[in-house]
Amino acid sequence: MILPSAALHERLAPHLGDVRAEVWAPGYTTRFPGPADLLVLPYMMPPEYLRWLEGLQVGVIQSQTLGYDGVAAHLPVGITFCNAVDVHESSTAELAIGLVVSMLRGIPDAVRNAGRGVWNHRRQPGLAGKRVLLVGVGGVGSQITRRLAPFDVELTLVGRTPRGTVHGIEELPALLPQSDVVIMAVPLTAETRGLVNARFLSLMPDDALVVNVSRGEIVDTTALVAELRQGRLRAALDVTDPEPLPSDHALWRLPGVLITPHLGGDTDAMDTRVDRVILEQVRRLSAGEAPLNVVLGPGR
Amino acid sequence: MILPSAALHERLAPHLGDVRAEVWAPGYTTRFPGPADLLVLPYMMPPEYLRWLEGLQVGVIQSQTLGYDGVAAHLPVGITFCNAVDVHESSTAELAIGLVVSMLRGIPDAVRNAGRGVWNHRRQPGLAGKRVLLVGVGGVGSQITRRLAPFDVELTLVGRTPRGTVHGIEELPALLPQSDVVIMAVPLTAETRGLVNARFLSLMPDDALVVNVSRGEIVDTTALVAELRQGRLRAALDVTDPEPLPSDHALWRLPGVLITPHLGGDTDAMDTRVDRVILEQVRRLSAGEAPLNVVLGPGR
Repeated sequence: MILPSAALHERLAPHLGDVRAEVWAPGYTTRFPGPADLLVLPYMMPPEYLRWLEGLQVGVIQSQTLGYDGVAAHLPVGITFCNAVDVHESSTAELAIGLVVSMLRGIPDAVRNAGRGVWNHRRQPGLAGKRVLLVGVGGVGSQITRRLAPFDVELTLVGRTPRGTVHGIEELPALLPQSDVVIMAVPLTAETRGLVNARFLSLMPDDALVVNVSRGEIVDTTALVAELRQGRLRAALDVTDPEPLPSDHALWRLPGVLITPHLGGDTDAMDTRVDRVILEQVRRLSAGEAPLNVVLGPGR
Repeated sequence: MILPSAALHERLAPHLGDVRAEVWAPGYTTRFPGPADLLVLPYMMPPEYLRWLEGLQVGVIQSQTLGYDGVAAHLPVGITFCNAVDVHESSTAELAIGLVVSMLRGIPDAVRNAGRGVWNHRRQPGLAGKRVLLVGVGGVGSQITRRLAPFDVELTLVGRTPRGTVHGIEELPALLPQSDVVIMAVPLTAETRGLVNARFLSLMPDDALVVNVSRGEIVDTTALVAELRQGRLRAALDVTDPEPLPSDHALWRLPGVLITPHLGGDTDAMDTRVDRVILEQVRRLSAGEAPLNVVLGPGR
Protein backbone atom coordinates (compact mmCIF):
# COMPACT_ATOMS: atom_id res chain seq x y z
CA MET A 1 0.00 0.00 0.00
CA ILE A 2 1.10 3.56 -0.72
CA LEU A 3 0.06 6.40 1.60
CA PRO A 4 0.36 10.11 0.73
CA SER A 5 1.89 11.37 3.99
CA ALA A 6 4.03 10.33 6.93
CA ALA A 7 1.25 11.51 9.25
CA LEU A 8 -1.25 9.11 7.71
CA HIS A 9 1.36 6.34 7.76
CA GLU A 10 1.93 6.93 11.47
CA ARG A 11 -1.81 6.85 12.23
CA LEU A 12 -2.41 3.61 10.33
CA ALA A 13 0.81 1.68 11.05
CA PRO A 14 -0.40 0.11 14.33
CA HIS A 15 -3.39 -1.38 12.49
CA LEU A 16 -1.69 -2.74 9.37
CA GLY A 17 -0.33 -6.08 10.63
CA ASP A 18 1.97 -7.45 7.93
CA VAL A 19 0.67 -5.16 5.18
CA ARG A 20 3.60 -3.16 3.80
CA ALA A 21 3.04 0.60 3.52
CA GLU A 22 5.23 3.26 1.86
CA VAL A 23 4.86 7.03 1.64
CA TRP A 24 4.51 8.53 -1.86
CA ALA A 25 1.98 10.51 -3.88
CA PRO A 26 1.42 11.35 -7.55
CA GLY A 27 3.65 14.30 -8.43
CA TYR A 28 6.34 13.46 -5.81
CA THR A 29 9.83 13.62 -7.24
CA THR A 30 10.93 10.54 -5.29
CA ARG A 31 10.86 7.19 -7.07
CA PHE A 32 7.52 5.31 -7.16
CA PRO A 33 7.89 2.62 -4.48
CA GLY A 34 5.38 0.25 -6.08
CA PRO A 35 3.90 -1.96 -7.41
CA ALA A 36 0.95 -1.40 -5.04
CA ASP A 37 -2.44 -3.02 -4.60
CA LEU A 38 -3.77 0.17 -2.99
CA LEU A 39 -2.72 3.81 -3.33
CA VAL A 40 -4.31 6.53 -1.16
CA LEU A 41 -4.45 10.02 -2.70
CA PRO A 42 -3.66 13.23 -0.83
CA TYR A 43 -6.76 15.16 0.34
CA MET A 44 -8.01 17.59 -2.35
CA MET A 45 -5.41 16.56 -4.95
CA PRO A 46 -6.11 18.12 -8.39
CA PRO A 47 -7.34 15.28 -10.65
CA GLU A 48 -4.74 16.27 -13.31
CA TYR A 49 -2.09 14.70 -11.04
CA LEU A 50 -3.61 11.26 -11.75
CA ARG A 51 -1.66 11.35 -15.04
CA TRP A 52 1.50 10.75 -13.04
CA LEU A 53 0.26 7.20 -12.48
CA GLU A 54 0.42 6.38 -16.21
CA GLY A 55 2.44 3.20 -16.64
CA LEU A 56 2.81 2.56 -12.88
CA GLN A 57 1.53 -0.65 -11.34
CA VAL A 58 -1.36 0.44 -9.09
CA GLY A 59 -4.44 -1.69 -8.52
CA VAL A 60 -6.90 0.44 -6.58
CA ILE A 61 -6.89 4.15 -5.78
CA GLN A 62 -8.62 5.39 -2.65
CA SER A 63 -9.32 9.14 -2.66
CA GLN A 64 -9.95 11.18 0.48
CA THR A 65 -12.79 13.18 -1.10
CA LEU A 66 -16.42 12.40 -1.84
CA GLY A 67 -16.53 14.27 -5.16
CA TYR A 68 -14.63 12.79 -8.12
CA ASP A 69 -15.24 15.35 -10.84
CA GLY A 70 -12.36 15.33 -13.37
CA VAL A 71 -11.17 11.85 -12.38
CA ALA A 72 -12.55 10.03 -15.43
CA ALA A 73 -10.65 12.39 -17.76
CA HIS A 74 -7.27 11.81 -16.10
CA LEU A 75 -7.22 8.33 -14.55
CA PRO A 76 -5.02 5.88 -16.51
CA VAL A 77 -6.87 2.80 -17.79
CA GLY A 78 -6.35 -0.30 -15.64
CA ILE A 79 -6.70 1.42 -12.28
CA THR A 80 -9.84 1.19 -10.10
CA PHE A 81 -10.93 4.44 -8.40
CA CYS A 82 -12.81 4.57 -5.08
CA ASN A 83 -14.14 7.74 -3.46
CA ALA A 84 -14.39 8.49 0.27
CA VAL A 85 -17.92 7.80 1.49
CA ASP A 86 -19.00 8.56 5.10
CA VAL A 87 -15.97 10.79 5.64
CA HIS A 88 -17.07 14.34 4.82
CA GLU A 89 -20.88 14.25 4.66
CA SER A 90 -21.53 15.10 8.34
CA SER A 91 -19.00 17.92 8.44
CA THR A 92 -20.28 19.41 5.21
CA ALA A 93 -23.88 19.23 6.38
CA GLU A 94 -22.92 20.82 9.70
CA LEU A 95 -21.26 23.71 7.85
CA ALA A 96 -24.31 24.11 5.59
CA ILE A 97 -26.53 24.61 8.64
CA GLY A 98 -23.96 27.01 10.09
CA LEU A 99 -23.92 29.05 6.87
CA VAL A 100 -27.72 29.22 6.70
CA VAL A 101 -28.19 30.26 10.34
CA SER A 102 -25.27 32.71 10.15
CA MET A 103 -26.65 34.44 7.09
CA LEU A 104 -30.26 34.61 8.30
CA ARG A 105 -29.34 35.76 11.81
CA GLY A 106 -26.79 38.40 10.80
CA ILE A 107 -23.61 36.81 12.17
CA PRO A 108 -21.34 38.20 9.37
CA ASP A 109 -22.68 41.72 10.04
CA ALA A 110 -22.08 41.22 13.77
CA VAL A 111 -18.45 40.17 13.08
CA ARG A 112 -17.87 43.26 10.92
CA ASN A 113 -19.54 45.53 13.49
CA ALA A 114 -17.49 44.00 16.31
CA GLY A 115 -14.33 44.97 14.45
CA ARG A 116 -15.46 48.58 14.79
CA GLY A 117 -16.82 48.19 18.33
CA VAL A 118 -20.41 48.68 17.14
CA TRP A 119 -23.44 47.13 18.89
CA ASN A 120 -26.23 47.31 16.31
CA HIS A 121 -29.33 45.41 17.38
CA ARG A 122 -31.90 45.04 14.66
CA ARG A 123 -34.43 42.36 13.92
CA GLN A 124 -33.21 39.54 11.67
CA PRO A 125 -35.09 36.85 9.79
CA GLY A 126 -35.27 33.52 11.62
CA LEU A 127 -34.86 30.08 10.09
CA ALA A 128 -38.06 28.74 11.71
CA GLY A 129 -40.93 28.78 9.23
CA LYS A 130 -38.72 29.43 6.20
CA ARG A 131 -39.17 27.51 2.95
CA VAL A 132 -35.93 25.63 2.32
CA LEU A 133 -35.18 23.96 -1.03
CA LEU A 134 -32.45 21.34 -0.80
CA VAL A 135 -31.04 20.33 -4.18
CA GLY A 136 -29.22 17.03 -3.72
CA VAL A 137 -30.42 13.96 -1.83
CA GLY A 138 -27.17 11.96 -1.67
CA GLY A 139 -24.89 11.55 1.32
CA VAL A 140 -24.46 15.25 2.06
CA GLY A 141 -28.10 16.04 1.28
CA SER A 142 -29.40 13.38 3.64
CA GLN A 143 -27.14 14.64 6.45
CA ILE A 144 -28.40 18.19 5.85
CA THR A 145 -31.99 16.91 5.93
CA ARG A 146 -31.35 15.16 9.23
CA ARG A 147 -29.86 18.30 10.81
CA LEU A 148 -32.55 20.64 9.45
CA ALA A 149 -35.40 18.52 10.80
CA PRO A 150 -35.71 20.16 14.25
CA PHE A 151 -35.45 23.73 12.90
CA ASP A 152 -39.15 23.91 11.99
CA VAL A 153 -38.61 24.72 8.31
CA GLU A 154 -40.74 23.78 5.29
CA LEU A 155 -38.25 21.53 3.52
CA THR A 156 -38.55 20.58 -0.15
CA LEU A 157 -36.15 18.04 -1.65
CA VAL A 158 -34.93 17.93 -5.24
CA GLY A 159 -33.02 15.01 -6.75
CA ARG A 160 -31.94 13.99 -10.24
CA THR A 161 -35.12 12.00 -10.70
CA PRO A 162 -38.41 12.34 -8.84
CA ARG A 163 -39.21 9.59 -6.32
CA GLY A 164 -41.52 9.65 -3.32
CA THR A 165 -41.29 13.08 -1.70
CA VAL A 166 -38.25 13.99 -3.84
CA HIS A 167 -38.97 16.34 -6.74
CA GLY A 168 -37.12 15.97 -10.03
CA ILE A 169 -34.59 18.56 -11.15
CA GLU A 170 -36.91 19.62 -14.01
CA GLU A 171 -39.34 20.95 -11.37
CA LEU A 172 -36.86 23.62 -10.22
CA PRO A 173 -38.50 26.44 -12.23
CA ALA A 174 -41.74 25.87 -10.31
CA LEU A 175 -40.05 25.40 -6.91
CA LEU A 176 -37.47 28.22 -6.89
CA PRO A 177 -40.01 31.10 -6.68
CA GLN A 178 -41.40 29.45 -3.49
CA SER A 179 -38.02 29.17 -1.71
CA ASP A 180 -36.48 31.46 0.91
CA VAL A 181 -33.31 29.38 1.14
CA VAL A 182 -31.80 27.16 -1.59
CA ILE A 183 -29.03 24.75 -0.58
CA MET A 184 -26.94 23.12 -3.31
CA ALA A 185 -25.55 19.70 -2.35
CA VAL A 186 -25.14 17.92 -5.68
CA PRO A 187 -22.01 16.31 -7.16
CA LEU A 188 -20.39 18.17 -10.05
CA THR A 189 -21.38 16.43 -13.28
CA ALA A 190 -22.06 17.53 -16.86
CA GLU A 191 -25.69 17.91 -15.76
CA THR A 192 -25.06 20.07 -12.68
CA ARG A 193 -22.24 22.28 -14.03
CA GLY A 194 -23.65 25.82 -14.16
CA LEU A 195 -27.03 24.61 -12.85
CA VAL A 196 -27.27 27.79 -10.75
CA ASN A 197 -27.23 30.11 -13.77
CA ALA A 198 -28.85 33.49 -14.50
CA ARG A 199 -32.28 31.91 -15.07
CA PHE A 200 -32.09 29.81 -11.85
CA LEU A 201 -31.15 32.90 -9.83
CA SER A 202 -33.78 35.09 -11.50
CA LEU A 203 -36.47 32.64 -10.36
CA MET A 204 -35.52 33.01 -6.69
CA PRO A 205 -37.61 35.54 -4.74
CA ASP A 206 -36.14 38.84 -3.48
CA ASP A 207 -33.86 38.49 -0.44
CA ALA A 208 -33.61 34.71 -0.90
CA LEU A 209 -30.38 32.98 0.10
CA VAL A 210 -28.45 30.53 -2.07
CA VAL A 211 -25.96 28.24 -0.30
CA ASN A 212 -23.33 26.15 -2.09
CA VAL A 213 -21.42 23.42 -0.25
CA SER A 214 -20.76 21.13 -3.22
CA ARG A 215 -18.44 22.43 -5.99
CA GLY A 216 -17.92 25.98 -7.20
CA GLU A 217 -18.67 25.10 -10.83
CA ILE A 218 -22.30 24.31 -9.91
CA VAL A 219 -22.81 28.08 -9.87
CA ASP A 220 -22.32 30.43 -12.84
CA THR A 221 -20.16 32.94 -10.96
CA THR A 222 -20.72 35.75 -13.48
CA ALA A 223 -24.50 35.41 -13.15
CA LEU A 224 -24.28 35.30 -9.35
CA VAL A 225 -22.07 38.40 -9.23
CA ALA A 226 -24.62 40.24 -11.38
CA GLU A 227 -27.48 39.32 -9.01
CA LEU A 228 -25.49 40.13 -5.86
CA ARG A 229 -24.46 43.50 -7.30
CA GLN A 230 -28.14 44.44 -7.50
CA GLY A 231 -28.52 43.41 -3.86
CA ARG A 232 -31.55 41.29 -4.72
CA LEU A 233 -30.24 37.93 -3.48
CA ARG A 234 -27.79 36.72 -0.84
CA ALA A 235 -25.24 33.90 -1.05
CA ALA A 236 -23.16 31.71 1.26
CA LEU A 237 -20.43 29.88 -0.63
CA ASP A 238 -18.02 27.31 0.78
CA VAL A 239 -16.83 26.59 -2.75
CA THR A 240 -16.21 29.00 -5.61
CA ASP A 241 -15.28 29.07 -9.29
CA PRO A 242 -12.43 29.87 -9.57
CA GLU A 243 -11.08 28.30 -6.38
CA PRO A 244 -9.23 29.53 -4.43
CA LEU A 245 -10.89 32.86 -5.16
CA PRO A 246 -8.22 35.40 -6.24
CA SER A 247 -7.90 38.36 -3.89
CA ASP A 248 -9.09 40.84 -6.50
CA HIS A 249 -12.27 38.88 -7.37
CA ALA A 250 -15.54 40.86 -7.32
CA LEU A 251 -17.28 38.23 -5.11
CA TRP A 252 -15.18 39.17 -2.06
CA ARG A 253 -16.57 42.67 -1.80
CA LEU A 254 -20.22 42.31 -2.79
CA PRO A 255 -23.00 42.90 -0.24
CA GLY A 256 -24.88 39.90 1.13
CA VAL A 257 -22.24 37.27 0.48
CA LEU A 258 -20.45 34.99 2.95
CA ILE A 259 -17.45 33.06 1.62
CA THR A 260 -15.74 30.26 3.56
CA PRO A 261 -12.56 28.70 2.09
CA HIS A 262 -13.79 25.16 1.22
CA LEU A 263 -14.06 24.18 4.89
CA GLY A 264 -16.89 21.70 4.21
CA GLY A 265 -15.37 18.33 4.90
CA ASP A 266 -12.12 19.31 6.58
CA THR A 267 -12.61 19.02 10.33
CA ASP A 268 -10.95 17.09 13.12
CA ALA A 269 -13.67 14.47 12.62
CA MET A 270 -12.16 13.57 9.23
CA ASP A 271 -9.07 11.59 10.28
CA THR A 272 -10.73 8.72 12.10
CA ARG A 273 -13.28 8.44 9.29
CA VAL A 274 -10.63 8.36 6.56
CA ASP A 275 -8.64 5.79 8.55
CA ARG A 276 -11.71 3.59 8.82
CA VAL A 277 -12.27 3.71 5.04
CA ILE A 278 -8.63 2.89 4.24
CA LEU A 279 -8.43 0.04 6.74
CA GLU A 280 -11.62 -1.44 5.34
CA GLN A 281 -10.11 -1.36 1.84
CA VAL A 282 -6.96 -3.05 3.19
CA ARG A 283 -9.09 -5.72 4.81
CA ARG A 284 -11.10 -6.31 1.65
CA LEU A 285 -8.11 -6.45 -0.70
CA SER A 286 -6.23 -8.74 1.72
CA ALA A 287 -9.27 -11.03 1.83
CA GLY A 288 -9.58 -11.03 -1.96
CA GLU A 289 -12.90 -9.16 -1.77
CA ALA A 290 -14.02 -6.37 -4.12
CA PRO A 291 -13.09 -2.88 -2.91
CA LEU A 292 -15.68 -0.53 -1.37
CA ASN A 293 -17.16 2.52 -3.14
CA VAL A 294 -15.81 1.86 -6.64
CA VAL A 295 -16.76 4.78 -8.89
CA LEU A 296 -14.55 3.89 -11.87
CA GLY A 297 -13.49 0.32 -12.65
CA PRO A 298 -10.19 -0.64 -14.28
CA GLY A 299 -11.76 -0.82 -17.77
CA ARG A 300 -14.01 2.28 -17.24
CA MET B 1 -56.26 46.75 26.95
CA ILE B 2 -53.20 48.92 26.45
CA LEU B 3 -50.70 48.10 23.70
CA PRO B 4 -47.19 49.59 23.45
CA SER B 5 -47.15 50.49 19.74
CA ALA B 6 -49.40 51.43 16.85
CA ALA B 7 -47.86 48.54 14.87
CA LEU B 8 -48.98 45.98 17.44
CA HIS B 9 -52.39 47.67 17.64
CA GLU B 10 -52.77 47.37 13.88
CA ARG B 11 -51.80 43.69 13.88
CA LEU B 12 -54.21 42.77 16.67
CA ALA B 13 -57.17 45.06 15.90
CA PRO B 14 -58.89 42.66 13.44
CA HIS B 15 -58.96 39.96 16.15
CA LEU B 16 -60.14 42.00 19.14
CA GLY B 17 -63.92 42.03 18.59
CA ASP B 18 -65.40 44.52 21.06
CA VAL B 19 -62.31 44.64 23.30
CA ARG B 20 -61.12 48.28 23.51
CA ALA B 21 -57.41 48.84 22.87
CA GLU B 22 -55.32 52.01 23.31
CA VAL B 23 -51.66 52.71 22.58
CA TRP B 24 -49.47 53.71 25.53
CA ALA B 25 -46.43 52.42 27.42
CA PRO B 26 -44.74 53.08 30.78
CA GLY B 27 -42.57 56.16 30.38
CA TYR B 28 -44.70 57.74 27.59
CA THR B 29 -45.40 61.42 28.26
CA THR B 30 -48.99 61.10 27.02
CA ARG B 31 -51.73 60.62 29.62
CA PHE B 32 -52.35 57.04 30.86
CA PRO B 33 -55.49 55.96 28.97
CA GLY B 34 -56.57 53.42 31.62
CA PRO B 35 -57.87 51.78 33.74
CA ALA B 36 -56.88 48.60 31.91
CA ASP B 37 -57.38 44.90 32.56
CA LEU B 38 -54.31 44.08 30.44
CA LEU B 39 -51.22 46.12 29.57
CA VAL B 40 -48.63 44.81 27.10
CA LEU B 41 -45.05 46.03 27.64
CA PRO B 42 -42.69 47.11 24.85
CA TYR B 43 -40.15 44.44 23.84
CA MET B 44 -36.96 44.64 25.95
CA MET B 45 -38.23 47.47 28.20
CA PRO B 46 -35.88 48.14 31.16
CA PRO B 47 -37.67 46.84 34.30
CA GLU B 48 -37.08 50.20 36.03
CA TYR B 49 -39.84 51.64 33.82
CA LEU B 50 -42.38 49.50 35.70
CA ARG B 51 -42.29 52.19 38.43
CA TRP B 52 -44.25 54.45 36.08
CA LEU B 53 -47.23 52.20 36.75
CA GLU B 54 -47.30 53.10 40.46
CA GLY B 55 -50.81 54.23 41.34
CA LEU B 56 -52.26 53.43 37.90
CA GLN B 57 -55.13 50.97 37.54
CA VAL B 58 -53.62 48.01 35.67
CA GLY B 59 -54.73 44.42 36.28
CA VAL B 60 -52.34 42.20 34.34
CA ILE B 61 -49.07 42.98 32.59
CA GLN B 62 -47.98 40.89 29.63
CA SER B 63 -44.29 41.25 28.75
CA GLN B 64 -42.81 40.38 25.36
CA THR B 65 -39.73 38.73 26.87
CA LEU B 66 -39.14 35.34 28.46
CA GLY B 67 -36.73 36.62 31.12
CA TYR B 68 -38.11 38.75 33.94
CA ASP B 69 -35.01 39.60 35.94
CA GLY B 70 -35.45 42.91 37.80
CA VAL B 71 -39.26 42.83 37.58
CA ALA B 72 -39.90 41.86 41.21
CA ALA B 73 -37.88 44.86 42.41
CA HIS B 74 -39.83 47.39 40.37
CA LEU B 75 -43.36 46.10 39.82
CA PRO B 76 -45.96 48.01 41.91
CA VAL B 77 -47.96 45.78 44.28
CA GLY B 78 -51.40 44.87 43.00
CA ILE B 79 -50.37 44.14 39.42
CA THR B 80 -50.00 40.60 38.02
CA PHE B 81 -46.98 40.02 35.75
CA CYS B 82 -46.91 37.43 32.94
CA ASN B 83 -43.86 36.63 30.81
CA ALA B 84 -43.83 35.60 27.13
CA VAL B 85 -43.56 31.82 26.86
CA ASP B 86 -43.22 30.07 23.45
CA VAL B 87 -42.25 33.33 21.76
CA HIS B 88 -38.44 33.48 21.79
CA GLU B 89 -37.26 29.97 22.69
CA SER B 90 -36.98 28.61 19.13
CA SER B 91 -35.21 31.70 17.78
CA THR B 92 -32.79 31.77 20.70
CA ALA B 93 -32.01 28.08 20.33
CA GLU B 94 -31.50 28.52 16.59
CA LEU B 95 -29.00 31.32 17.24
CA ALA B 96 -27.20 29.22 19.86
CA ILE B 97 -26.61 26.48 17.27
CA GLY B 98 -25.52 29.11 14.76
CA LEU B 99 -23.01 30.56 17.24
CA VAL B 100 -21.57 27.14 18.10
CA VAL B 101 -21.18 26.01 14.48
CA SER B 102 -19.82 29.43 13.43
CA MET B 103 -17.17 29.43 16.13
CA LEU B 104 -16.07 25.82 15.64
CA ARG B 105 -15.99 26.02 11.85
CA GLY B 106 -14.19 29.38 11.60
CA ILE B 107 -16.96 31.53 10.11
CA PRO B 108 -15.88 34.75 11.94
CA ASP B 109 -12.31 34.27 10.63
CA ALA B 110 -13.69 33.71 7.13
CA VAL B 111 -15.71 36.97 7.36
CA ARG B 112 -12.62 38.91 8.46
CA ASN B 113 -10.47 37.29 5.75
CA ALA B 114 -13.11 38.02 3.09
CA GLY B 115 -12.88 41.72 3.97
CA ARG B 116 -9.23 41.55 2.89
CA GLY B 117 -9.84 39.23 -0.07
CA VAL B 118 -7.98 36.36 1.63
CA TRP B 119 -8.78 32.66 0.98
CA ASN B 120 -7.20 30.84 3.90
CA HIS B 121 -8.14 27.16 4.01
CA ARG B 122 -7.12 25.41 7.18
CA ARG B 123 -8.63 22.53 9.11
CA GLN B 124 -11.20 23.52 11.74
CA PRO B 125 -12.73 21.56 14.59
CA GLY B 126 -16.09 20.00 13.78
CA LEU B 127 -19.12 19.86 16.07
CA ALA B 128 -19.63 16.10 15.52
CA GLY B 129 -18.18 14.12 18.41
CA LYS B 130 -17.70 17.14 20.67
CA ARG B 131 -18.69 17.08 24.34
CA VAL B 132 -21.37 19.75 24.79
CA LEU B 133 -22.51 20.87 28.25
CA LEU B 134 -25.87 22.63 28.20
CA VAL B 135 -26.60 24.57 31.39
CA GLY B 136 -30.34 25.24 31.48
CA VAL B 137 -33.16 22.80 30.76
CA GLY B 138 -36.08 25.23 30.51
CA GLY B 139 -37.80 26.44 27.35
CA VAL B 140 -34.65 27.63 25.58
CA GLY B 141 -32.60 24.67 26.81
CA SER B 142 -35.09 22.12 25.55
CA GLN B 143 -35.21 23.80 22.12
CA ILE B 144 -31.40 23.76 21.99
CA THR B 145 -31.43 20.07 22.94
CA ARG B 146 -33.90 19.31 20.17
CA ARG B 147 -31.79 21.12 17.55
CA LEU B 148 -28.48 19.63 18.73
CA ALA B 149 -29.78 16.04 18.59
CA PRO B 150 -28.83 15.29 14.95
CA PHE B 151 -25.35 16.85 15.21
CA ASP B 152 -23.80 13.71 16.75
CA VAL B 153 -22.50 15.42 19.90
CA GLU B 154 -22.09 14.00 23.41
CA LEU B 155 -24.64 16.17 25.20
CA THR B 156 -24.70 16.60 28.98
CA LEU B 157 -27.54 18.54 30.60
CA VAL B 158 -27.35 20.60 33.79
CA GLY B 159 -30.38 21.99 35.62
CA ARG B 160 -30.98 23.64 38.97
CA THR B 161 -31.70 20.27 40.57
CA PRO B 162 -30.67 16.82 39.34
CA ARG B 163 -33.46 14.67 37.87
CA GLY B 164 -33.23 11.75 35.46
CA THR B 165 -30.45 12.47 32.98
CA VAL B 166 -30.18 16.10 34.16
CA HIS B 167 -27.20 16.83 36.40
CA GLY B 168 -27.51 19.33 39.25
CA ILE B 169 -25.72 22.66 39.11
CA GLU B 170 -23.41 21.58 41.97
CA GLU B 171 -21.92 18.97 39.62
CA LEU B 172 -20.47 21.68 37.34
CA PRO B 173 -16.94 21.46 38.80
CA ALA B 174 -16.78 17.80 37.76
CA LEU B 175 -18.43 18.33 34.35
CA LEU B 176 -16.68 21.46 33.09
CA PRO B 177 -13.23 19.84 32.60
CA GLN B 178 -14.93 17.26 30.31
CA SER B 179 -16.62 19.83 28.06
CA ASP B 180 -15.51 21.17 24.68
CA VAL B 181 -18.52 23.49 24.40
CA VAL B 182 -20.53 25.01 27.28
CA ILE B 183 -23.86 26.65 26.41
CA MET B 184 -25.52 28.89 29.03
CA ALA B 185 -29.33 28.99 28.76
CA VAL B 186 -30.45 29.78 32.31
CA PRO B 187 -32.66 32.62 33.53
CA LEU B 188 -30.93 35.42 35.44
CA THR B 189 -31.57 34.88 39.16
CA ALA B 190 -29.63 35.49 42.35
CA GLU B 191 -28.31 31.94 41.91
CA THR B 192 -27.13 32.30 38.32
CA ARG B 193 -25.73 35.86 38.46
CA GLY B 194 -21.99 35.54 37.89
CA LEU B 195 -22.25 31.74 37.63
CA VAL B 196 -19.63 31.82 34.86
CA ASN B 197 -16.90 33.29 37.07
CA ALA B 198 -13.11 32.90 37.19
CA ARG B 199 -13.35 29.45 38.80
CA PHE B 200 -15.97 28.20 36.30
CA LEU B 201 -13.82 29.38 33.38
CA SER B 202 -10.62 27.97 34.89
CA LEU B 203 -12.23 24.50 34.98
CA MET B 204 -12.92 24.52 31.24
CA PRO B 205 -10.27 22.74 29.13
CA ASP B 206 -7.95 24.64 26.77
CA ASP B 207 -9.62 25.86 23.55
CA ALA B 208 -13.10 25.19 24.94
CA LEU B 209 -15.94 27.44 23.84
CA VAL B 210 -18.42 29.15 26.17
CA VAL B 211 -21.68 30.37 24.62
CA ASN B 212 -24.13 32.73 26.37
CA VAL B 213 -27.63 33.26 24.98
CA SER B 214 -29.37 34.04 28.28
CA ARG B 215 -28.40 37.27 30.09
CA GLY B 216 -25.07 39.04 30.18
CA GLU B 217 -24.93 39.08 33.99
CA ILE B 218 -24.65 35.25 34.03
CA VAL B 219 -20.99 35.81 33.09
CA ASP B 220 -18.40 37.68 35.16
CA THR B 221 -17.16 39.85 32.30
CA THR B 222 -13.88 40.75 34.03
CA ALA B 223 -13.03 37.08 34.54
CA LEU B 224 -13.94 36.24 30.95
CA VAL B 225 -11.83 39.10 29.58
CA ALA B 226 -8.87 37.80 31.61
CA GLU B 227 -9.26 34.26 30.18
CA LEU B 228 -9.75 35.49 26.60
CA ARG B 229 -6.69 37.73 26.86
CA GLN B 230 -4.60 34.63 27.51
CA GLY B 231 -6.13 33.04 24.43
CA ARG B 232 -6.93 29.88 26.39
CA LEU B 233 -10.71 29.86 25.85
CA ARG B 234 -13.15 31.11 23.23
CA ALA B 235 -16.55 32.75 23.67
CA ALA B 236 -19.69 33.48 21.68
CA LEU B 237 -21.91 36.01 23.43
CA ASP B 238 -25.34 37.18 22.31
CA VAL B 239 -25.71 39.02 25.63
CA THR B 240 -23.13 41.02 27.54
CA ASP B 241 -22.65 42.86 30.81
CA PRO B 242 -22.79 45.81 30.31
CA GLU B 243 -25.29 45.78 27.46
CA PRO B 244 -25.14 47.32 24.94
CA LEU B 245 -21.38 46.87 25.06
CA PRO B 246 -19.68 50.29 24.88
CA SER B 247 -17.51 50.77 21.80
CA ASP B 248 -14.32 51.04 23.84
CA HIS B 249 -14.93 47.79 25.80
CA ALA B 250 -12.05 45.27 25.85
CA LEU B 251 -14.33 42.37 24.80
CA TRP B 252 -14.75 43.75 21.27
CA ARG B 253 -11.12 43.34 20.35
CA LEU B 254 -10.07 40.13 22.10
CA PRO B 255 -9.13 37.05 20.08
CA GLY B 256 -11.54 34.13 19.94
CA VAL B 257 -14.71 36.03 20.75
CA LEU B 258 -17.87 36.43 18.68
CA ILE B 259 -20.39 39.03 19.87
CA THR B 260 -23.90 39.35 18.46
CA PRO B 261 -26.10 42.25 19.65
CA HIS B 262 -28.80 40.38 21.65
CA LEU B 263 -30.33 38.91 18.51
CA GLY B 264 -31.57 35.80 20.35
CA GLY B 265 -35.32 36.11 20.30
CA ASP B 266 -35.79 38.93 17.83
CA THR B 267 -36.64 37.40 14.46
CA ASP B 268 -39.51 37.68 12.02
CA ALA B 269 -40.97 34.60 13.73
CA MET B 270 -41.62 36.65 16.88
CA ASP B 271 -44.65 38.73 15.84
CA THR B 272 -47.13 35.93 15.21
CA ARG B 273 -46.02 34.24 18.42
CA VAL B 274 -46.42 37.39 20.52
CA ASP B 275 -49.82 38.03 18.95
CA ARG B 276 -50.92 34.51 19.87
CA VAL B 277 -49.89 35.03 23.51
CA ILE B 278 -51.67 38.41 23.79
CA LEU B 279 -54.86 37.17 22.15
CA GLU B 280 -54.93 34.17 24.48
CA GLN B 281 -54.65 36.53 27.48
CA VAL B 282 -57.50 38.65 26.07
CA ARG B 283 -59.61 35.53 25.65
CA ARG B 284 -58.86 34.34 29.19
CA LEU B 285 -59.50 37.68 30.87
CA SER B 286 -62.71 38.18 28.85
CA ALA B 287 -63.89 34.72 29.93
CA GLY B 288 -63.00 35.43 33.56
CA GLU B 289 -60.24 32.80 33.51
CA ALA B 290 -56.84 33.12 35.19
CA PRO B 291 -54.15 34.61 32.94
CA LEU B 292 -51.44 32.44 31.35
CA ASN B 293 -47.79 32.36 32.49
CA VAL B 294 -48.14 34.34 35.72
CA VAL B 295 -44.68 34.81 37.24
CA LEU B 296 -45.65 37.41 39.88
CA GLY B 297 -49.14 37.64 41.38
CA PRO B 298 -50.77 40.89 42.55
CA GLY B 299 -49.75 40.29 46.17
CA ARG B 300 -46.26 38.87 45.28
